[in-house]
Amino acid sequence: MNGQTIRSAVFIASMAGLYLSAAMLIPAGLDFYFGNPDWQVFAISAFVVGSICLASAAANRGVMAPFSKRLGFLVVNLLWLTLSITGAIPFYLSSLGLDMADALFESVSAVTTTGATVISGLDNAPPGLLLWRSLLQWMGGIGIVALGLLVLPFLKVGGFSVFRMESSDTAEKPLARFAAFIQAFFAIYIGLTVACTVLYSLLGMSQLDALNHAMTTIATGGFSTHDASFGAFQSPALIWTATFFMAVAGLPFSVMILFAVRGRLDALRDPQILAYAGILLVLSITIALSLRLGQGEGFGMALTHAAFNVVSIVTTTGFASSDYTLWGPLPVALFFMATFLGGCSGSTAGGIKAYRLVIIASSVRSGLLRLIYPNSVRPVRYGNIVVEPDMQRTVFLFVCAYFGVWALGSVALAATGLDIETAISGSITALANVGPGIGPVIGPAGNFASLGDPAKMILAFLMLLGRLEILAVLVLLVPGFWLD
Amino acid sequence: MNGQTIRSAVFIASMAGLYLSAAMLIPAGLDFYFGNPDWQVFAISAFVVGSICLASAAANRGVMAPFSKRLGFLVVNLLWLTLSITGAIPFYLSSLGLDMADALFESVSAVTTTGATVISGLDNAPPGLLLWRSLLQWMGGIGIVALGLLVLPFLKVGGFSVFRMESSDTAEKPLARFAAFIQAFFAIYIGLTVACTVLYSLLGMSQLDALNHAMTTIATGGFSTHDASFGAFQSPALIWTATFFMAVAGLPFSVMILFAVRGRLDALRDPQILAYAGILLVLSITIALSLRLGQGEGFGMALTHAAFNVVSIVTTTGFASSDYTLWGPLPVALFFMATFLGGCSGSTAGGIKAYRLVIIASSVRSGLLRLIYPNSVRPVRYGNIVVEPDMQRTVFLFVCAYFGVWALGSVALAATGLDIETAISGSITALANVGPGIGPVIGPAGNFASLGDPAKMILAFLMLLGRLEILAVLVLLVPGFWLD
Repeated sequence: MNGQTIRSAVFIASMAGLYLSAAMLIPAGLDFYFGNPDWQVFAISAFVVGSICLASAAANRGVMAPFSKRLGFLVVNLLWLTLSITGAIPFYLSSLGLDMADALFESVSAVTTTGATVISGLDNAPPGLLLWRSLLQWMGGIGIVALGLLVLPFLKVGGFSVFRMESSDTAEKPLARFAAFIQAFFAIYIGLTVACTVLYSLLGMSQLDALNHAMTTIATGGFSTHDASFGAFQSPALIWTATFFMAVAGLPFSVMILFAVRGRLDALRDPQILAYAGILLVLSITIALSLRLGQGEGFGMALTHAAFNVVSIVTTTGFASSDYTLWGPLPVALFFMATFLGGCSGSTAGGIKAYRLVIIASSVRSGLLRLIYPNSVRPVRYGNIVVEPDMQRTVFLFVCAYFGVWALGSVALAATGLDIETAISGSITALANVGPGIGPVIGPAGNFASLGDPAKMILAFLMLLGRLEILAVLVLLVPGFWLD
Repeated sequence: MNGQTIRSAVFIASMAGLYLSAAMLIPAGLDFYFGNPDWQVFAISAFVVGSICLASAAANRGVMAPFSKRLGFLVVNLLWLTLSITGAIPFYLSSLGLDMADALFESVSAVTTTGATVISGLDNAPPGLLLWRSLLQWMGGIGIVALGLLVLPFLKVGGFSVFRMESSDTAEKPLARFAAFIQAFFAIYIGLTVACTVLYSLLGMSQLDALNHAMTTIATGGFSTHDASFGAFQSPALIWTATFFMAVAGLPFSVMILFAVRGRLDALRDPQILAYAGILLVLSITIALSLRLGQGEGFGMALTHAAFNVVSIVTTTGFASSDYTLWGPLPVALFFMATFLGGCSGSTAGGIKAYRLVIIASSVRSGLLRLIYPNSVRPVRYGNIVVEPDMQRTVFLFVCAYFGVWALGSVALAATGLDIETAISGSITALANVGPGIGPVIGPAGNFASLGDPAKMILAFLMLLGRLEILAVLVLLVPGFWLD
């Protein structure tokens, strides 16, 4: 690690902070339009953050360090740290009176698209502040897709590179393809958000509610403008619309891009999509049946709420349409276990992710066969692709780190005094960037405000760890990362 | 799979059942001596089981199939199934009035050395029946050590072969070594049991209590002759004695054998022993401090109970000296997470086991280094030994299967109506062969009697799965196992 690498990373993070300060002018404008004095909070924040980042960028500009994996890891960590801290400033200065820990928690929860909130009284909060929360999630979603499709596969931490998957097109020039890819991504991301906003609005949401919820739906973030979350909208049409858009946002954007750019539907045969769709279907129907039989709910309404909340948890969005922890033991256990899963790689979802589940399932199958036929070679497969040992090792590494961090996080939360249910579900809901946990404190009807500051800081750290797929943070703890 | 293989497996299982029926004469004698009419139960059971097993052995005797991995898997499964079913017969026929599900649960819990019980009123139960429970666990312990040291490494499911570890001694004849090994094992196993019985007796237990508890201590089983478990003995000397013997029984017997036969202490430098000792120390001291600070308990007494219960859970024994679920959030979370861990390979303990934790830790370290230095090769190590990719894959396979089965087991238990705490802790305590779970129902102060029959059958299945290291059962589900 040399000075040039660190300066290059600081420069990139400063530029990102600069963009974020510019984004603060949007809620400033909204609050100004509504005559809400909080517009000054955003104006001041934009000025302060903008000045600091501009100075830092100017001080560290110059020749960029050659791209290396170390620079990549440093940039990724510094980027999310910068967004978290600068994003917290308007929360801290706002009229809501959040303390530093609360402001940081809310900001980390936003940029990691987790969606856990410490703010109660959302229904009467200033519109600019609500927009800021949604905007942070929406921008966080862009960062996560870029991370998952472009950065992490290169760093060999996780995800399938969109380029590697398209191995038949190697004749094309990589830079031209990269530009086309970025354009297509923004078109799809913005297009989905606009479509979702329009539908939400047509189906009865106010325009501001529609925009806010559309942004946090597509980012699979889950911040709402109501304390009751999506429970404030009891229209089945709205609930199904949200279910649809959440499910779409949990798909790999690479597949949507290929579909949009070339009209190629065959990319939909990606095994992780089949696994993801299968998980959503099985969980939704099981829980709907359980609701129908156990609580005597009509099957249509049961399926509506079951599908919404299942899709919300598996895509790691975290909206809740009702307090599903009252649905009986089986749904609670399924929701708890679903918190671990996650959506597809290359989406805005967190968690273990469907492609890892596919590789794990194939590994288990291959391993069992090897036990019976010791001399045969049964490769681990991902669809038609043979998964290299290196990739298998990375998946193994991630799974071990994931359960290890979950266990340590649970113990740390318990040490701050949280009961076992809150501790173990809080640890995984933060790590998987889902949002709600299980139980009365942080369940779908709860709120993270009542937790102590140490618990909030632990949860915020878990969110960042999960968002960067754990390993990209853990490498910073290896002494060799800094010393050599 | 051909007929000869199946007949050979049935023959071996029948012979084991025959030995078990002979063992039934011991509690029969005890009950007869005390004038308890339950002696007839054991006499009848011995006669019925003995006749059936004798007939089955006679019908299937003849030329043994050549040893193959398939035969190995079949024998292992059939063996534990036979012991579970035949062991249940005296419970079913006894004066306690257990139904079939209860009798089977108790028997499976015994032969897998889990120690979860459905019997309440142990303090007044017939002595022969209490001895039968302890005897089943003690014999189960022998089977597990044999499985872990001799069978599973050969089947490549888990464990380190004692022979492979002693690679410097290849000059010796394997059969002579095998006989010496078996002799030394029995000497140590019986020696430890006798020593433990004598000490328990000297420190205040009645002779029968001492014998029963010594057998279930050395087998890390955890059945007690009192409803209050070890809480019935509040003498610190007794508690520390039990702690010591449980900790010893969680060590690899191969190491004890090497020490006993050759006086070689260097085998104690086995990395899993360091990991195991480290886990016991850190958990005991943390929980003792938490008790001291939180509950105002004196440090000596706090350490006594903390160490006892930590060693009991980590060695998967399952005795409880008090209801540790009342010790506050941190101890509860630590006890829950400790349920996953397990003792050393080659001991009577279950769980993930310390050698796998060592390999996982080395894999994570090696993987993180590989992320920074992509071109270097950092082998995964177990002490000085390089862990082959094949072994790493098996550990990966086990970890994935372990967490997968835990999740599915939790959901299945919740489907029978158990609350989330009981479901997720019940699933892991059965799978890791520990005994008590968390919460008021199946916690250290609870009892499994109140659960429904479906939940009991799920738990019994999880105990068998865990005891056979999951994979040895899952191979039976691969169609190729039977068809080819």
